[in-house]
Amino acid sequence: MPLKHAVLALVAERRGYGYDLVQRLERRVGPAWRLSPSAVYPALDQLERDGLVTSAAGRCGTRRSPRVAYAPTPAGLTALEAWLVTAGATPEPMRAELHLRLAFAHARHGDALAAQLAAHERAWRELLARYGRRAREPEAPRGGTALVDAAVVARLHAELAWVAQARATLADA
Amino acid sequence: MPLKHAVLALVAERRGYGYDLVQRLERRVGPAWRLSPSAVYPALDQLERDGLVTSAAGRCGTRRSPRVAYAPTPAGLTALEAWLVTAGATPEPMRAELHLRLAFAHARHGDALAAQLAAHERAWRELLARYGRRAREPEAPRGGTALVDAAVVARLHAELAWVAQARATLADA
Repeated sequence: MPLKHAVLALVAERRGYGYDLVQRLERRVGPAWRLSPSAVYPALDQLERDGLVTSAAGRCGTRRSPRVAYAPTPAGLTALEAWLVTAGATPEPMRAELHLRLAFAHARHGDALAAQLAAHERAWRELLARYGRRAREPEAPRGGTALVDAAVVARLHAELAWVAQARATLADA
Repeated sequence: MPLKHAVLALVAERRGYGYDLVQRLERRVGPAWRLSPSAVYPALDQLERDGLVTSAAGRCGTRRSPRVAYAPTPAGLTALEAWLVTAGATPEPMRAELHLRLAFAHARHGDALAAQLAAHERAWRELLARYGRRAREPEAPRGGTALVDAAVVARLHAELAWVAQARATLADA
């Protein structure tokens, strides 16, 4: 997943230091991504090695703990523009470990599977509630991020409808 | 993604040689996974290194080209059972490159994004048609695989409903 380009896009909007970028990225792409700082920092390092961003001790830190601020290079801005208009993107495969277990389970695993389905249902409901709170915030997502949130919410509703059906099927079996 | 356990489950159901296992796995987990043989063979090698399967030149080949058949070991059967009842599975993060592009695009990228949305829509429609054909085959998926297919179909309908909304929003903007 090209998180690198998303980090580049953030830096191009407004230069920032590491943790600030992590927070802005989380807010922009939404909680369904389950981003971790440990995914963002390597992306920044890679961008710097590729000559797409530069780093410098910025003014936002203190003399004792200067913060490294990242800014795009001209090559970075070109690469960003190319990525945004790339035509060849195909949807990702749809893969879930739960699906593998369902495909290979036997009747004796019914209780364990029901517990896994229930755990997924809880996680999806919690995530749906988070997206609901996001939409009601004063700074609610707009534009592209609102479209991304809508995609996640549509998918969560589909997963929740399916999991109810799957639990009923397992209970009958 | 623990494809390794799915391959182990297949071998435990009926011993098989490499390509036979690829075909059985594709049929079992469905086309949304976009499996490739190059993902299955390393899983078999890993299972053998871990002592979970054994391989032997089987009877299904010829003297000139013996086929290596895989069978589970007792340790493999124990590992499989443990995997099937593992309780800790949480849903995978929901990530899509298209979502990253949407979250960072500007008005000037509208045409490129519309083309990407249209390409995704085509791919999802084709996949939905494949699942429709699968369901109408004489050997249509049953049991756990039918549940997995239902999950994919529900998700495809959600994606298609969303993409229509996203295209309309982009066209208005």
